[in-house]
Amino acid sequence: MLVDGKQMRPIWFDTDLKIAKVIDQRMLPHQLVVADLNTVDDVIEAIREMFVRGAPLIGATGAFGVYTAVLRDQACNDDRLAVECDRLKAVRPTAVNLAWGVERVLEACVGRDDRDARLAAALAEALAIVEEEAENCRLIGAHGLSLIREISRKKGGKPVNILTHCNAGWLATVEYGTATAPMYTAFDDGIDIHVWVDETRPLNQGARLTAWELGKHGIAHTVITDNAGGHLMQHGMVDLVIVGTDRTTWTGDVANKIGTYLKALAAKDNDIPFYVALPSSTIDWEMDNGVTSIPIEERDPSEISHIQGLDESGNLVKVLVPPPASPCANHAFDVTPSRLVTGLITERGMCDASREGILSLFPEKR
Amino acid sequence: MLVDGKQMRPIWFDTDLKIAKVIDQRMLPHQLVVADLNTVDDVIEAIREMFVRGAPLIGATGAFGVYTAVLRDQACNDDRLAVECDRLKAVRPTAVNLAWGVERVLEACVGRDDRDARLAAALAEALAIVEEEAENCRLIGAHGLSLIREISRKKGGKPVNILTHCNAGWLATVEYGTATAPMYTAFDDGIDIHVWVDETRPLNQGARLTAWELGKHGIAHTVITDNAGGHLMQHGMVDLVIVGTDRTTWTGDVANKIGTYLKALAAKDNDIPFYVALPSSTIDWEMDNGVTSIPIEERDPSEISHIQGLDESGNLVKVLVPPPASPCANHAFDVTPSRLVTGLITERGMCDASREGILSLFPEKR
Repeated sequence: MLVDGKQMRPIWFDTDLKIAKVIDQRMLPHQLVVADLNTVDDVIEAIREMFVRGAPLIGATGAFGVYTAVLRDQACNDDRLAVECDRLKAVRPTAVNLAWGVERVLEACVGRDDRDARLAAALAEALAIVEEEAENCRLIGAHGLSLIREISRKKGGKPVNILTHCNAGWLATVEYGTATAPMYTAFDDGIDIHVWVDETRPLNQGARLTAWELGKHGIAHTVITDNAGGHLMQHGMVDLVIVGTDRTTWTGDVANKIGTYLKALAAKDNDIPFYVALPSSTIDWEMDNGVTSIPIEERDPSEISHIQGLDESGNLVKVLVPPPASPCANHAFDVTPSRLVTGLITERGMCDASREGILSLFPEKR
Repeated sequence: MLVDGKQMRPIWFDTDLKIAKVIDQRMLPHQLVVADLNTVDDVIEAIREMFVRGAPLIGATGAFGVYTAVLRDQACNDDRLAVECDRLKAVRPTAVNLAWGVERVLEACVGRDDRDARLAAALAEALAIVEEEAENCRLIGAHGLSLIREISRKKGGKPVNILTHCNAGWLATVEYGTATAPMYTAFDDGIDIHVWVDETRPLNQGARLTAWELGKHGIAHTVITDNAGGHLMQHGMVDLVIVGTDRTTWTGDVANKIGTYLKALAAKDNDIPFYVALPSSTIDWEMDNGVTSIPIEERDPSEISHIQGLDESGNLVKVLVPPPASPCANHAFDVTPSRLVTGLITERGMCDASREGILSLFPEKR
């Protein structure tokens, strides 16, 4: 999407240097730092240290990790490449997309002895993954557009107020984002929208990343505390909620960043549509009950106690908020039961958050 | 309550210096700074700059402001005292308790020409106000204790997990607090409790003040993000919610720190009791519908964009989190409809959050 008037993605291939580059998202919104992926170790660091985050983007970065391994191996040794791929996959072992992206590029390379052909195959496959992720998000935007257009029509063109939680934006994917895809599509289509951006404690992905993305693209938005959404909904200041998801059961239960469930409850209490945008790769076809079955990651308590921001001297620093002796607990996700979800927006279209709804879009899973 | 083994209040009279002292709460939890109220201007600064906050404590501080005015006026001039009282009341004009505390001490002084008697009357009235506030909170604790004791009994003595939002603790009152009063009383009674402390963005009164209070008194607690409560309730990790209130309608609607409504929704969705603790002075006997009628203060957006904490060098600093160009909106309170409130805990006892419930405790209001 647009950054200061220029199209940008969180990962791209530099055709002069013949390497991939990524935005180091840890420094956003205060510094736009670009990191070169010169070596496999660079790629490993970018994934482990969370220069990049979001399942689709991690998968794409892993894919370019295999390209980088091929680039650095003049001998075209398949065994050595397999070892490098294992190293890549081990960085975030629970990220399904990482292993999937690495395997796909690996398969495109093995057995090729000609170095130019091997490198070309790796690059083509990595670029294909990137474009497929972008296309999925573009389709999510195209399908979700109808929701926003309809509300805009009912409001006689007055701004459509959309609330979102966390960052399910282009920084987490490749382009458009998931939850943000309908927003970008509507904005680019000339519809007047305004986005309420939950700051999303503890890591403030809303305040840091979603606000930055939307602002750079020119979309009107306001940062609010995670506490504020209920009050705004009570007073008619929210027309629509759209969030992303890390995993959605085939019954329609939605795991997403902690606090999503609270917003879904408030939306239900105030008759406001609550939609979840997702590529179908995040649907779990095994699990029936998300609330009881989806494992919830507990992360480092220091993410709560220490907050990163820019000090008066312009340095990025972390400050301690609670008493040093007070323990913090950092449950990173929660599960919103399907009964609170108005609908899902996927690359194939929209559906109810239910078995029947999901199977109607994915009949091959019956 | 206890601080490092010693009894402490947020305001007290120093019998040697003949002045009142307060904790400068802006520096908590990282620095315990005590401010002397030597002059009326000191008192005005303490209230305006929020060294002290919370309706009962502001009232008590204003009362000592009048004492200080008497102390500094050798001539016992009633006109001059009235002017000083007007200055005090104007500091936070919407704080009902401030005007009430100031007026009460003023009335005890006017017409007294003997300076010693005048000063003694001012001191006695200010101290009476302080003790009345403490007694109200003690009674709230005594009444709320039964709730916690019953849950403890049902759980066979296992820790009772109580969630609270913001700081309705002794730092906001004089002693015990309101929401925290049943917790302190239960703890002092030997009941095993653990408190989930919502950090309470944007000003982090939970992480900064409630966590400090509870920790200093020795009560087990854990700081969580405001986003986490719903997940904890879904998984049986919360037995009871107790919050304070800034204003409660006589029909049972509860205005409190922004985000309270979201916790009430989650408690209802998970069949968890949700109680509100309050001195009856915060009941609004005129208003029928809290959601539509209670005015909600919008505060400075910089409270959201800039977060105060301790940097690595041990200095209290503020850091900027969102992009400087992104607007923030800071609605400070929300209203929880009575249908989501299990009951109220007042100095007269507990009741339903309804007209009938409230009038049963306050029959003189029929």
